[in-house]
Amino acid sequence: MDIEQEILNRASAIEDKIRTYMPKEKGFQQTVLDAMDYSVFAGGKRLRPMLMEASYQMFGGKGNVIEAFMAAIEMIHTYSLVHDDLPAMDNDEYRRGKKTTHAVYGEAMAILAGDALLNYAYETAVSAVVQNAGDIRVAKAFQILAKKAGIYGMIGGQVVDVESEKNGQTIDRERLDFIYRLKTSALLEASLMIGAVLAGADDIEVAQMEAAGTKLGLAFQIQDDILDVTGTFEQLGKPIGSDDKNDKATYVAFEGLDKAKEDVRRFSEEAVSILDKLRGNHTFLRELFLYLINRNR
Amino acid sequence: MDIEQEILNRASAIEDKIRTYMPKEKGFQQTVLDAMDYSVFAGGKRLRPMLMEASYQMFGGKGNVIEAFMAAIEMIHTYSLVHDDLPAMDNDEYRRGKKTTHAVYGEAMAILAGDALLNYAYETAVSAVVQNAGDIRVAKAFQILAKKAGIYGMIGGQVVDVESEKNGQTIDRERLDFIYRLKTSALLEASLMIGAVLAGADDIEVAQMEAAGTKLGLAFQIQDDILDVTGTFEQLGKPIGSDDKNDKATYVAFEGLDKAKEDVRRFSEEAVSILDKLRGNHTFLRELFLYLINRNR
Repeated sequence: MDIEQEILNRASAIEDKIRTYMPKEKGFQQTVLDAMDYSVFAGGKRLRPMLMEASYQMFGGKGNVIEAFMAAIEMIHTYSLVHDDLPAMDNDEYRRGKKTTHAVYGEAMAILAGDALLNYAYETAVSAVVQNAGDIRVAKAFQILAKKAGIYGMIGGQVVDVESEKNGQTIDRERLDFIYRLKTSALLEASLMIGAVLAGADDIEVAQMEAAGTKLGLAFQIQDDILDVTGTFEQLGKPIGSDDKNDKATYVAFEGLDKAKEDVRRFSEEAVSILDKLRGNHTFLRELFLYLINRNR
Repeated sequence: MDIEQEILNRASAIEDKIRTYMPKEKGFQQTVLDAMDYSVFAGGKRLRPMLMEASYQMFGGKGNVIEAFMAAIEMIHTYSLVHDDLPAMDNDEYRRGKKTTHAVYGEAMAILAGDALLNYAYETAVSAVVQNAGDIRVAKAFQILAKKAGIYGMIGGQVVDVESEKNGQTIDRERLDFIYRLKTSALLEASLMIGAVLAGADDIEVAQMEAAGTKLGLAFQIQDDILDVTGTFEQLGKPIGSDDKNDKATYVAFEGLDKAKEDVRRFSEEAVSILDKLRGNHTFLRELFLYLINRNR
């Protein structure tokens, strides 16, 4: 399998699917709809929906109930980036080589577009719940999504991250691990868990997928830190050394580049070995894990 | 019935209920939890959960499934205020006589606390969906909540409001009506509809409650505009004439004070007359409608 090509093909198919779930009806609120579209389709690897779909397929899922959740998690991921880039937060003008949402639409509209994406994610997912009323798995998938996106998930990590930067708080390893686990791993965990739940995996299998997501997220985030030091603008689509500019405590700053690289390998091997013990065909998911972790952008 | 005392009693009971639904477990993310608590318990009439509960009771609802939704809608209302007050939006330092969330916790934390409240609202409501899996009414109530809070509901109104102000756009009456219907009425409609749905009202009854909410919202918002002109700081808990300061197009600016007052009466009578045609005991709801519209703060 040419994994890079396969990923590109899947990402493209996922984008087409997400597009069908975006709001269509325009009106006086057209600007926010444009800003939502701009934000969602400004690029991105579509990693979360891709993981979700692959997990669903691995456990034998066949229907299209997964699609609403794939769209929803990408909307949630996107809103988090839009708010994260705001002047009051990381104040980033570029992401993936494109102007950020507030740089194009202004700060107020970016706040609202983020709110709108978060809310629309749940509108999208609840439609699946209503259409499949009586199927507890769909309601449970929704619950996983909401929890992993919230204060005990992604937002929780974001809060501690922001606070550590703003207050010039001396960050310790425990806090850094907390940030990585919540800010980065939480949505990856949700992706893998939701795919499993909707395909009918049992609780133990879902917990295993959660554990794989945790490891994958750690490896992914540390790789991100490494790339911030070693990458180029062309590779990353954003200024290099922006972590350093923002005086950000990263895994690389704590452990040094070599140890960081070693830990990426270790966490990714742990993630893959969890997969290998589970039933189903995990060829693609396995390759995807390894690709993500060895990526150079 | 001493309606003012009854409303205060109910608001107090509702606050106690909401408190039980707020997140408890603290951790590194304690600041956002504090900011969420601060925002939710900085006062407020608890109008939306009160309307929801009264609608539920009017249609004979008896269980406690309504409580999660009462808490959720107040969280959504609160998040909208927190984001609305931000420097990039209305830039308000005070609300209800207290410092706004960003004035206390800073801008970044206020953005995140708003995000967290919106997300936690859905976490709270989805728990009710999971606990009542198989009861399609609960999933439908969730769907109403999400739609009325979104781009075709509250956020949509907020977007047009912000855009009209920022661009110094000449606002027309059609646009003003759009803003009022979405920004103010949408959550009131949701409150009345969700109470009805969960109590087992039929689709026609739910549509009637929606219509009552639309009228109530219009009357409520126009009354708000009137109070901005005629009220005092003590009554309102915020600077007088802030609409004027912000050069905001209001109903009063369009129609003049006398016509505005007349229309408040007209819309409120229409709202009440919808109630009067429905089954159930609507004594309290009727009084609440009239009280809200005749309020002086």
